[in-house]
Amino acid sequence: MDLNADLGESFGAWRMGDDEALLTLVSSANVACGFHAGDPLTMLGTIRAAVVNKVRIGAHVSYRDLAGFGRRAMDIGRDELYGDVLYQLAALDGMARAAGGAVSYVKPHGALYNRIVHDAAQAKAVGDAVRDFDPRLPMLGLAGSKIAAVAAENGQRFVREAFVDRGYRPDGTLVPRGEAGALLLEPEPVARRAVQMAVSGTVTAVDGTVLTLEVDSLCVHGDSPGAVGMARAVRAGLQSAKVPIAAFC
Amino acid sequence: MDLNADLGESFGAWRMGDDEALLTLVSSANVACGFHAGDPLTMLGTIRAAVVNKVRIGAHVSYRDLAGFGRRAMDIGRDELYGDVLYQLAALDGMARAAGGAVSYVKPHGALYNRIVHDAAQAKAVGDAVRDFDPRLPMLGLAGSKIAAVAAENGQRFVREAFVDRGYRPDGTLVPRGEAGALLLEPEPVARRAVQMAVSGTVTAVDGTVLTLEVDSLCVHGDSPGAVGMARAVRAGLQSAKVPIAAFC
Amino acid sequence: MDLNADLGESFGAWRMGDDEALLTLVSSANVACGFHAGDPLTMLGTIRAAVVNKVRIGAHVSYRDLAGFGRRAMDIGRDELYGDVLYQLAALDGMARAAGGAVSYVKPHGALYNRIVHDAAQAKAVGDAVRDFDPRLPMLGLAGSKIAAVAAENGQRFVREAFVDRGYRPDGTLVPRGEAGALLLEPEPVARRAVQMAVSGTVTAVDGTVLTLEVDSLCVHGDSPGAVGMARAVRAGLQSAKVPIAAFC
Amino acid sequence: MDLNADLGESFGAWRMGDDEALLTLVSSANVACGFHAGDPLTMLGTIRAAVVNKVRIGAHVSYRDLAGFGRRAMDIGRDELYGDVLYQLAALDGMARAAGGAVSYVKPHGALYNRIVHDAAQAKAVGDAVRDFDPRLPMLGLAGSKIAAVAAENGQRFVREAFVDRGYRPDGTLVPRGEAGALLLEPEPVARRAVQMAVSGTVTAVDGTVLTLEVDSLCVHGDSPGAVGMARAVRAGLQSAKVPIAAFC
Repeated sequence: MDLNADLGESFGAWRMGDDEALLTLVSSANVACGFHAGDPLTMLGTIRAAVVNKVRIGAHVSYRDLAGFGRRAMDIGRDELYGDVLYQLAALDGMARAAGGAVSYVKPHGALYNRIVHDAAQAKAVGDAVRDFDPRLPMLGLAGSKIAAVAAENGQRFVREAFVDRGYRPDGTLVPRGEAGALLLEPEPVARRAVQMAVSGTVTAVDGTVLTLEVDSLCVHGDSPGAVGMARAVRAGLQSAKVPIAAFC
Repeated sequence: MDLNADLGESFGAWRMGDDEALLTLVSSANVACGFHAGDPLTMLGTIRAAVVNKVRIGAHVSYRDLAGFGRRAMDIGRDELYGDVLYQLAALDGMARAAGGAVSYVKPHGALYNRIVHDAAQAKAVGDAVRDFDPRLPMLGLAGSKIAAVAAENGQRFVREAFVDRGYRPDGTLVPRGEAGALLLEPEPVARRAVQMAVSGTVTAVDGTVLTLEVDSLCVHGDSPGAVGMARAVRAGLQSAKVPIAAFC
Repeated sequence: MDLNADLGESFGAWRMGDDEALLTLVSSANVACGFHAGDPLTMLGTIRAAVVNKVRIGAHVSYRDLAGFGRRAMDIGRDELYGDVLYQLAALDGMARAAGGAVSYVKPHGALYNRIVHDAAQAKAVGDAVRDFDPRLPMLGLAGSKIAAVAAENGQRFVREAFVDRGYRPDGTLVPRGEAGALLLEPEPVARRAVQMAVSGTVTAVDGTVLTLEVDSLCVHGDSPGAVGMARAVRAGLQSAKVPIAAFC
Repeated sequence: MDLNADLGESFGAWRMGDDEALLTLVSSANVACGFHAGDPLTMLGTIRAAVVNKVRIGAHVSYRDLAGFGRRAMDIGRDELYGDVLYQLAALDGMARAAGGAVSYVKPHGALYNRIVHDAAQAKAVGDAVRDFDPRLPMLGLAGSKIAAVAAENGQRFVREAFVDRGYRPDGTLVPRGEAGALLLEPEPVARRAVQMAVSGTVTAVDGTVLTLEVDSLCVHGDSPGAVGMARAVRAGLQSAKVPIAAFC
């Protein structure tokens, strides 16, 4: 099972997340590309550390929104979004190659990630940009989303991810933040949930329903205070259950 | 002889320069990479037009300074500058590849161009970033500059350029803007100067001295009101003198 | 009748619009505040020219989006939007005061203008920011909009504007751009429409219906190629019809 | 004696410094204005907290350089710098007034602070912008600097500050960072130095020379890990020595 986390989210003088610790725990690093976080020097540091730790590098592409950290949905035109995604992906990949690595997948960030679950035009812009850059590059996202449909049409690989610390509703969607059960805050139940997802391919919804969940990668969060402890518990739990942790292939 | 001009310097809703006309006149396009001008969609449009017109694409890397159009020198640290150059170069090259082209040289822009004539540390940051991206990529700049020295040390090709519309002092340096003779404003003498540079490898300084000038590329300006007329005159002049216009190789 | 236009929309090295000409034609200038256009030096130039021409200065507040020129709607939180509006308004007003003027109204720009026609939360953020800055400052916008409702609740003056070069539907809304009749392109019918709006308080919709339209200000566009000609025709038309042109009060 | 510290240096999702704690310790807060740090919501939060804690608000104006945190000197023209300073000062002051406060002094930040010690043109731009905004507004800086000279010429009040945790050379200049003795890292000697500065108006240089130092405000740093402990020690030291802590007036 693949474990992915958001990394390289510092910017200039501002630090975010404990990248050093997380890079020893995950198999895939979603690296910010400068539009929501990640100045070039930060990107380079994250790339180098990922190469050393043999962690796969993914392009964490975003709306252009440093002030909002890419968390604000934007009505951006298809051509502009296509260009923005291509630019970020190209920048990270070229930097990675100069440092002995390469981008091996793309995961949209924040508001863009959520928007292309249901917005077909923006999903197409993202999918086409990734395809035109390299048609073999997989995209990481939510099963059943518009971006998954675009990937299918474009003949692109789509990697389905699940969230180990989020509550699920009986229909398979996430409990929205702010509602009861939206977030699992303790490492123990999060680790148990990760094992359930990886071993049985199911998740237990907030009402007790057990749902089938096809998943290729588990997302652990990188920027919360307990992020490292959570990732450590998930990794330990998977290892106890004899689930090998490795990047999807 | 190569003719180069700055292109792709629009940004978002703002237009600058007549790229369409210039792309039929020059052999090398210095394409802005987003730090002083050039949003991704503008970059893509310039790349596509350059590919269609068989004009060589160069990365016009700059300080991060949209508000100042990259014209303000900055005391930026070596690592930061290295990262900024690598990021811009990677972004443009990856975009160009997705559009059937590639970056085939690097020309620093504006204040960075001038700074690395004499600032060894910044010159090294620029040169190393280009080398680490691709050691075969030539850099375009001023003969006798610090960046030329870095290129020599790094084993990188250095393309020497001259300015067809700038006055030269007897010591081979440019007459500073603002002083008498700094700028040639009429197409006719500019075209004659271009022919002299290309054919005899000399330039006549403001005091009448004839200087030897080894030059691989002639720069015509892209963003002045008469830019297109000037470039047209230079091209016509060179063609009349039987100087073939083609990208340096 | 008041005539307003968007001004000061240059940024750094990029020029937009013919501010000089427009300032001799309109009575109110919507001045960009740095978030969609308008670096501080541009703002200062526009302010000074407005003071000289005795044109009223309005704060043309926007989403933070230079790359998109504030034309992309954004799901921004209420507190963040409140802060962004207050910041822009304060910056322009303080600069205006240093130059012998003052901000005397607020007009939201582009996507924000359109969003707060129907988005109550964002409308409230905008209205409250303006009220907390100065409760006597009028806001300019669309009659019947959410921002008009907020102004009413907050006890703020609301100035209703109409668009002289846009097609209207029988229900009083604008024909969306891209549809037939959305835009009037000839100065002559635009000037006639302006006179109709000012004299009879009506507008003739695309289907011929004559609608009542209470209007305090007429918006002429500033950044299109024919903007100055259009504004000149509108001004001349109103003067022929003996409609005095003066800022609302 | 006045104690000042840099506050409000978070930006968007990124946190910096422990403003809450520092606001209980200092008498003057240098508040970032959006150009090196401080999005509008952060500015508003800092302003409100300063008002509650009865701490004086200063405009911490900077070069426009979020990526470099305003720490990179820039060759910016006088008019542009004048505009940038005026914009930031106006924005912060207007926001402060909306929140029941006001800007009561200006302290340039980072590279700009250092540049206007010796660059007369940039110093004049800064001084003139502050004067044109409000001639009674004092500026905080280094005694003997170009900005102090501009203040004198302009008839502006100049508040001389000293650094409690920096080493001084026998000629009264600071030991450059990176050299031995540049930084005092322990709270105890820093507190003693603060008392010496406040009580006897002297400082002991790295070579033991005792220098006279006229000082109106002591700067404690806000963004280092031990910043709060240091400020607490300085405050306690001054109180033990019966030096009242209050904003300069």
